[in-house]
Amino acid sequence: MACAVCPNEIAKSPMKFQSPKGTRDFYPAEMAVRRRIEGAWRDASIAFGYDEIDGPTFEHLELYTAKSGEGIVNELFSFRRAGGSDDYALRPEFTPTLARMAAARAAQLPMPVKWFAIPNFFRAERPQRGRLREFYQWNVDLLGAEGPAIDAEIIGVAIAALARLGLRATDVRVKISHRVAAANVVRALGVADESIAGAFELLDRRDKMAPEEFTKRAAALGLAGDALARFETVVRTRVQITDDIGVLATTAGIAVDSLAELVLLRDALVAAGLSDWCEFDLGIVRGLAYYTGTVFEIHEASGGERAIAGGGRYDGLVELFGGPKTPAIGFGMGDVVLGLVLADRGLLPADGTELLPRPDAFVIATADPAADAELPRLVARLRGEGLHVRHSYKATRNVGKLLADASKQRARFAVLLGAELADGRVMLKDLASGEQRPVALTELPALLRAPA
Amino acid sequence: MACAVCPNEIAKSPMKFQSPKGTRDFYPAEMAVRRRIEGAWRDASIAFGYDEIDGPTFEHLELYTAKSGEGIVNELFSFRRAGGSDDYALRPEFTPTLARMAAARAAQLPMPVKWFAIPNFFRAERPQRGRLREFYQWNVDLLGAEGPAIDAEIIGVAIAALARLGLRATDVRVKISHRVAAANVVRALGVADESIAGAFELLDRRDKMAPEEFTKRAAALGLAGDALARFETVVRTRVQITDDIGVLATTAGIAVDSLAELVLLRDALVAAGLSDWCEFDLGIVRGLAYYTGTVFEIHEASGGERAIAGGGRYDGLVELFGGPKTPAIGFGMGDVVLGLVLADRGLLPADGTELLPRPDAFVIATADPAADAELPRLVARLRGEGLHVRHSYKATRNVGKLLADASKQRARFAVLLGAELADGRVMLKDLASGEQRPVALTELPALLRAPA
Repeated sequence: MACAVCPNEIAKSPMKFQSPKGTRDFYPAEMAVRRRIEGAWRDASIAFGYDEIDGPTFEHLELYTAKSGEGIVNELFSFRRAGGSDDYALRPEFTPTLARMAAARAAQLPMPVKWFAIPNFFRAERPQRGRLREFYQWNVDLLGAEGPAIDAEIIGVAIAALARLGLRATDVRVKISHRVAAANVVRALGVADESIAGAFELLDRRDKMAPEEFTKRAAALGLAGDALARFETVVRTRVQITDDIGVLATTAGIAVDSLAELVLLRDALVAAGLSDWCEFDLGIVRGLAYYTGTVFEIHEASGGERAIAGGGRYDGLVELFGGPKTPAIGFGMGDVVLGLVLADRGLLPADGTELLPRPDAFVIATADPAADAELPRLVARLRGEGLHVRHSYKATRNVGKLLADASKQRARFAVLLGAELADGRVMLKDLASGEQRPVALTELPALLRAPA
Repeated sequence: MACAVCPNEIAKSPMKFQSPKGTRDFYPAEMAVRRRIEGAWRDASIAFGYDEIDGPTFEHLELYTAKSGEGIVNELFSFRRAGGSDDYALRPEFTPTLARMAAARAAQLPMPVKWFAIPNFFRAERPQRGRLREFYQWNVDLLGAEGPAIDAEIIGVAIAALARLGLRATDVRVKISHRVAAANVVRALGVADESIAGAFELLDRRDKMAPEEFTKRAAALGLAGDALARFETVVRTRVQITDDIGVLATTAGIAVDSLAELVLLRDALVAAGLSDWCEFDLGIVRGLAYYTGTVFEIHEASGGERAIAGGGRYDGLVELFGGPKTPAIGFGMGDVVLGLVLADRGLLPADGTELLPRPDAFVIATADPAADAELPRLVARLRGEGLHVRHSYKATRNVGKLLADASKQRARFAVLLGAELADGRVMLKDLASGEQRPVALTELPALLRAPA
């Protein structure tokens, strides 16, 4: 097709284009769902006193290779600028950016720093249920303070957002472990200090390998026979907050003192009113290399989906990026698995358009001669006052059809411009009750703004 | 540094990392400014009845090469997935995504489609004032309807957002041209039909070349001597909405009918109350190849910055992406130049933290024995009610210092937990007036929620 006024000849045949594999087009209904989830994340963050931040969508590749969490490096989308020499990668997670930002302003930032962000992230892996190549994720981090009350606060923010979305403690489980307690357990079972990291790695990957492979690797770490059996028991035991943590110690055959971190955390969770939502699960490892203390994941209660959220304490990371030694804890919660869980529980409308903002008024010009001239003026004036105002783009004068359009677009009121305009008045029709009455043009903004 | 409980040895020397050139770190103050701008964009969009959409952050490279606007193809960040065969590019603009999305659902979408989006975009060009490698941009598009009233509506949305941010008609100019009217002018000046596109391209690039170069190229297109002088005059003449468009025709030595599109547009702009903000300027071309009718740019009034916004009618684009022939108009408004203009006009606070949400309450445990136990419970309960609640992370019991912290964090109220707890009461202190009084714990949420 050649255009009379365009400088370029453009291709003749229409091409079929699709969004890249593992990415999403957000039409209004899908976007409304995304905004609803983001709104709950934002409201929970603000209630807990967190300030929003963001970073670049791509970073220097070295920012991700620095902490050498291998699982992530292989999944990066990386690139260079044509003619440039710097390697960049689309952000696969937020913590490196956050640690870099905290390190860069460590001297000025009043501690504790409480930040949240709702960025998009990118993973070059195979798309599957709950896992896309581009997704949105809420990140909440608290830097510069430590202790069980802080860890409980962070867990509390995550729970607050889930509660705002309609989920209850029976719908999800916050599964909590602690790297120090877990290290004490494996050490007590006979794993040498230098093999503890290997034991965590094995634990994290146990569902991805055959049982014989697992047994073989466990033996190489010093876990065999009775020790391996006790290890298996411990990592499969879920301890409710009201349970006696001593039972877990007995199961593992270790001193209760080894699990002191869990006891402190339990008391903080109880004080913050979170007991119902949480349980201890030493099988939770979190793959990322940088966690140092409390780690947790939030799962749908039946365990049928991937983790809804995951996080933990990473006290070494800000220092790694050039800042001072800074205690830190945080988590990420993605939109994809959460969306699946909410839909499964009937907590999202079947049609997301129900979540779109409702028009305050739908303005209709009747056949009256003055109506056509007044319509654009009135619409512009009402919108200038901040009201959400729509009108028809059809040529029809059929008021019945136009009122049907108004209802279809979920307008609260129809405003009919007709013979009353001569007296400076219009007809105001409440589309829920069907009542209509003449009102002065000057009163209109206040009437449209009144709560339903 | 080696961590006792982590699986990986991590690098010893702290590294200095920076955000990539031409990208930004948004600390809370900067993020609050970005959210303020985005809020004005969103509110204006909704007032005008537009629904929010979004697309992937990267698209197939072919989506951008398809319409062969050369200026943009050279500025793309493009990449492949390791082991993959598809070429992708970070989105440099939104229109191709929008046209693709509209084409994909053309059969189901009720027309007109009114969509807005606030995505980030990427340009691999040299960063300079007003121009970054990653920026945020508001896009507003109306598809499936045409005519001057539609064009005026789109221009009205852009102006509504600027007005919400505090800008007035004296601060900015909406400079409007029309490709049909402009084509009529250059044709009347002697440019052959096949050279009209070349004349637009020359006009768009005239500030980027030496005057001799411009004169030489103009002559090649058939513009020399008196015709060139008239061309220069026409593209430098700014016609106010209240001016007689006939004067421009006389200047160009062409029939007023040639500018009929501008006359219709003027009437629609007047009806929508936009006259003060707009002017006609046939020097506005917009580089992009796909515009077919009205084109416009919004500039700071003195012309000292790059364009705040730009857009126009692109009736051929949805068809290009496989949809039916669909009239369409839209614009983009970036956050970078707009931010500079707002700051220059004093319309942004010197410190963006003033824009952050204010805490409803700052809870303080006094030395009373019951206070420490009650604090986490009360804080959790108030946050559960949706209130924005903070407390100190310091060990201090100095109530004066803690009240100073509460004020510094801009809390509306301080809630002091002390001896009154025995009666189920706390002290509520209004931090603006300094007044304080005992209130029942049960009353607290309602009192904190009351408007200031």
